[in-house]
Amino acid sequence: MGEQWEFDRATAVSDLGGGRYGGKIADGWDINGNANGGYLLAIAVRAMRAAAGRVDPCTVTAHFLAPGRPGPVSVVTDVVKSGRMFSTISGSLHADDGRRVLQLLAAFGDTPDSGPVEGPAFSDGGPPELPPIEECVRRTPDSAGVAVALMDRLHVDLDPVCAGFQRGERAAEALIAAGRHPAEMTGYVALADGRPWDTLSLMLAADCFPPAVFNLDLPFGWVPTVELTVQVRGRPAPGPLRARFGTRFVRGSYFEEDGELWDSAGHLVALSRQLALVARG
Amino acid sequence: MGEQWEFDRATAVSDLGGGRYGGKIADGWDINGNANGGYLLAIAVRAMRAAAGRVDPCTVTAHFLAPGRPGPVSVVTDVVKSGRMFSTISGSLHADDGRRVLQLLAAFGDTPDSGPVEGPAFSDGGPPELPPIEECVRRTPDSAGVAVALMDRLHVDLDPVCAGFQRGERAAEALIAAGRHPAEMTGYVALADGRPWDTLSLMLAADCFPPAVFNLDLPFGWVPTVELTVQVRGRPAPGPLRARFGTRFVRGSYFEEDGELWDSAGHLVALSRQLALVARG
Repeated sequence: MGEQWEFDRATAVSDLGGGRYGGKIADGWDINGNANGGYLLAIAVRAMRAAAGRVDPCTVTAHFLAPGRPGPVSVVTDVVKSGRMFSTISGSLHADDGRRVLQLLAAFGDTPDSGPVEGPAFSDGGPPELPPIEECVRRTPDSAGVAVALMDRLHVDLDPVCAGFQRGERAAEALIAAGRHPAEMTGYVALADGRPWDTLSLMLAADCFPPAVFNLDLPFGWVPTVELTVQVRGRPAPGPLRARFGTRFVRGSYFEEDGELWDSAGHLVALSRQLALVARG
Repeated sequence: MGEQWEFDRATAVSDLGGGRYGGKIADGWDINGNANGGYLLAIAVRAMRAAAGRVDPCTVTAHFLAPGRPGPVSVVTDVVKSGRMFSTISGSLHADDGRRVLQLLAAFGDTPDSGPVEGPAFSDGGPPELPPIEECVRRTPDSAGVAVALMDRLHVDLDPVCAGFQRGERAAEALIAAGRHPAEMTGYVALADGRPWDTLSLMLAADCFPPAVFNLDLPFGWVPTVELTVQVRGRPAPGPLRARFGTRFVRGSYFEEDGELWDSAGHLVALSRQLALVARG
């Protein structure tokens, strides 16, 4: 999609030859000064899909090595294999001072459009049940004492039962009382300027919700992502996505967060899983 | 662990210098002639952890590019970052003819021992409920018309309700009747020669069960793994692991399979997720 959308301007890359791409981390996509992980992922994946010559990221893994700050970046790509179904690409995103911010490995291919697909279909569960969007609680750019500039770029409208963390409250008991998992965040997400979702911007959607562990009795704060994998399962239909993020296991310093993204037509468009570190109190 | 165990002999690597390691794909770790994916992963991860100089794989992602056949292999490793908590390593496993079999990206660090850990702990669910191991159904080296030599290397003892596929039956309805997910495989797994599990051999355990989609009305056959990510969450206590594998979404040619591995002390030791392709009928 074109330059009329801020997501496309903020993730634009130019081909420098030899598998290298130039881009920038734009202002305003951060949480407390650190660029959002999903946004960083989208910059890198835009360069990698150019190197792949195939339009859809099918499965993308990123290791987060250093925080991303506004300024020029480069993406170095390497074509691992160009196969019949997939192009497998490794990549890395570097800050201008040489610091490596992300290391990535991804397969690009052809993802089905939204709607019925040829071949088998099976779904054990559907999109999260949500109240109408106007009854949800919008995540604010200033929530729980943290400046979340990213929330000016996209609208995250949370199921009210999950949104207590914005007032410093924990929702685990309310979620259990509602028959749900105690560490869950559900809601809608749309880009603020109305840009439709595509398989590239799903990278951003997969990492833009408040951590589901904010509903547990753990220290609030930055939960660094160690590794994030996004599996894209379909091209999204226009309209807000419905998202469900949840954590089942916290052990020592580590937890996982699993995500599901569903398009407005009710189809699963991505699954995500990250390994993250518990915030320091 | 030492050379008295067949897993260690079959995954041994020698340091060739410059980040290169030599090893072999041993006979007898295959399904219908193709080496098991978890076994290939273990060879590569053994070399990568040597390059990392840290003992535990924390999160490992592998893309499967070509089948592995018995014979010499080499593993090429690259230290992406050597940090305070993690060493991030990229790697690739190559057959003797130069074909690239696996491409990998992994973080190595320090994983807690089995048992109570310092810091927060939260678990939304526990190990699968299983009948005693002697009431389970052992997966045979010749099941559903396929030669699964791997089953001489390890013992997979399935919950009887999941094991109908060995007789060509689908368990989805029986699983639903039992209040369970329709595409689930649960059981115990132990190495045949009694070798205790460690964080390296968990790579094998994460990909040694029959596909959970064998319980659905889909074509039987080889379901190629595109990408597999294993998050290690603890060092396993001695004794068989309890495992739960399940698929929730099949769409077009793709499905995911999520796994949980629990040690004999009842602690979660790994989560896995793979993106795989539906078998051709």
